[in-house]
Amino acid sequence: MLDLIRSAGPISRVEVAETTGLTQATISTVVRELLDDGLVVEAGRAESTGGKPRVRLEINPASRLGIGVNLSLESITYVVANLAGTIVGRQRVAGAGSDGPISVVPRMAADIASLIERLGLDRDAIVGIGLAAPGPIDRERGTITMAPALPDWNGFPVRSALSTATGYPCTLDNDADAAALGEYWLGATEGHSVYASIYMGTGIGSGIVIDGTIYRGASSNVGELGHLTVDATGPVCTCGNRGCLELYATPARVVEAAVLRAAEGELSLSLTGDVATDFATIATAAAHGDAVATELIESSAQYLAAAVVSLANLFDVELIVLAGSAFAAAGAVYVRYLSDALRTRALARLTHPVEVRASVNGYDAAAIGAATLVMQDRLSPRSLRAVTMTSA
Amino acid sequence: MLDLIRSAGPISRVEVAETTGLTQATISTVVRELLDDGLVVEAGRAESTGGKPRVRLEINPASRLGIGVNLSLESITYVVANLAGTIVGRQRVAGAGSDGPISVVPRMAADIASLIERLGLDRDAIVGIGLAAPGPIDRERGTITMAPALPDWNGFPVRSALSTATGYPCTLDNDADAAALGEYWLGATEGHSVYASIYMGTGIGSGIVIDGTIYRGASSNVGELGHLTVDATGPVCTCGNRGCLELYATPARVVEAAVLRAAEGELSLSLTGDVATDFATIATAAAHGDAVATELIESSAQYLAAAVVSLANLFDVELIVLAGSAFAAAGAVYVRYLSDALRTRALARLTHPVEVRASVNGYDAAAIGAATLVMQDRLSPRSLRAVTMTSA
Repeated sequence: MLDLIRSAGPISRVEVAETTGLTQATISTVVRELLDDGLVVEAGRAESTGGKPRVRLEINPASRLGIGVNLSLESITYVVANLAGTIVGRQRVAGAGSDGPISVVPRMAADIASLIERLGLDRDAIVGIGLAAPGPIDRERGTITMAPALPDWNGFPVRSALSTATGYPCTLDNDADAAALGEYWLGATEGHSVYASIYMGTGIGSGIVIDGTIYRGASSNVGELGHLTVDATGPVCTCGNRGCLELYATPARVVEAAVLRAAEGELSLSLTGDVATDFATIATAAAHGDAVATELIESSAQYLAAAVVSLANLFDVELIVLAGSAFAAAGAVYVRYLSDALRTRALARLTHPVEVRASVNGYDAAAIGAATLVMQDRLSPRSLRAVTMTSA
Repeated sequence: MLDLIRSAGPISRVEVAETTGLTQATISTVVRELLDDGLVVEAGRAESTGGKPRVRLEINPASRLGIGVNLSLESITYVVANLAGTIVGRQRVAGAGSDGPISVVPRMAADIASLIERLGLDRDAIVGIGLAAPGPIDRERGTITMAPALPDWNGFPVRSALSTATGYPCTLDNDADAAALGEYWLGATEGHSVYASIYMGTGIGSGIVIDGTIYRGASSNVGELGHLTVDATGPVCTCGNRGCLELYATPARVVEAAVLRAAEGELSLSLTGDVATDFATIATAAAHGDAVATELIESSAQYLAAAVVSLANLFDVELIVLAGSAFAAAGAVYVRYLSDALRTRALARLTHPVEVRASVNGYDAAAIGAATLVMQDRLSPRSLRAVTMTSA
């Protein structure tokens, strides 16, 4: 009912009854609870063609806040969002790097405490912390199952550790799933019933949103686009599969190839050894017409295009949104390549176009999605296959 | 409500109210209509711990029948199913071959008429005809968009033609989707929240069922497994994509390779030139230990395994069911290969197993699914994004 009031409000109790088919008694009881909790407010009376005007209900956006955290090798992004998905505050700090959870979790807790302090947030309004991490993850256990970029985190109970360190309930989600939902909340996907976000940071993932809800599959490990086979006779990947996309298309592979080309004197860029920085440098050079830099980015984009056409042929999506740091640096080239591939090679083209778009907020999308996920989780637990820290 | 009574019945009106949250008045009205239509019957009284015993409702399986038709190059299968999904009758005849719809649609109408006659079916109980065809299809227009094996059918209004020829409303669905739903109705998938059927006949497709409902994507063109890229640098496919699975793994490719090996004197099987027959011959020889036949089937199975691991990594499925004529002939080898690949290479293995199983009724699954689809469509149109022939 909260979701209905959020999306359709201001809405009268009678309209809620008409939409849901629930009894007036049930609606009265639930609305009373929402009003008592301050989640919903009465918002004046609807115009009426006769009879008593109806009191209308709407969401009270400031009544609850969610904190979203996007953990990655390169950066940790914090976002505070309210019930309407509006961003109240944000911060980006250095990533986990080679540090394990023993040092990074306390650092995250301190960052969150100082963010709450700095923004002057009402602590009682904060419903919890949504953590978005590279996958695969075990959502039920609250652990990262196998993130090649963060090996020390594998199996560590990061959800409960962050909950204990901060005193707030936490949820753990895959970064690509969170980014997909973040795009939805940021309004980038309006009117699309099925869409995918492609998330490229250190690795490559994707999230699928169907009618506003993240598709979770059997165990929340969906959309592992980086481990799609793009060459069935290719080399073995760290995941155990063969010829995976991540062996051909990640920023690290682009930078590796650039280092080789620079050593051969074919590329004159100053590379630092930091993958994210160097990838951005190569992308900028490509955008300015450097032939070798263009070739390197295009090679990555072509492999990504093969995987994205496969994804489109399986999920029949209407929109692909590119999110994550790599696309924030080099979105335009990838948008062009993926658009071309989908327009000429995806089967959906026979029925409808598949649009490709860069995220409106590539750096923050996953953190925003994580903040909305923890609010959904805490405020309507039955609407998700949710597992939360009830002990916190 | 019909779906609830079917799956949970016998069930009392009070239990329906508890499950759905609908008002007693709404339930009384709907149940009255269902009773009047004969879809539901009263099935005695529930035991009660006190007070008046409750009348229980259950489905009346024989009250409605659906006719399912699975059209393919090699065969046309007809199935009559009742509301409970029980098969009342079936027939298999020669496929479309190189004949176009102008001659085949009247043949199908005649086959259906004689099936109704032979089984002595009540014509008024037949709600319609569900047609399952190779895809991609345009479900809204009722046309086959592009089936390489049936080129004369592309764009032909097969749904309305079959409806006109038979006098019954028709639905058109993808054969792999229909097979996936058929497996569900055949009870092969119980307890699995997300599963995929892999359908291999002339081409290769897949259907995905989530909590008992076919996943349809944006335009009902999902699960096009045959057009997953398994070699990003491979040759161009008829679909416009590159290195598609169908270029490596179909029965036609296995037979082609067998013809070459036979010409070189390495294989001593009598091949007829008919793909389905020859594929079955090769599969049988492989099952009896012929080394070359085994090698040919395994090559197909290895490419299929790469695509199926990719599908599992995107959809996070718990079960893969192999349906369609190719698996009816050679299911055991494929089950073994796909099981091994999923156990060692799919990311889901870190969280849960992915089971692989041959269809309980590989030849009939798509026709059974098509029969249940037309019943779902005609009896609860709002539960599907359904388009039906209302003029018929």
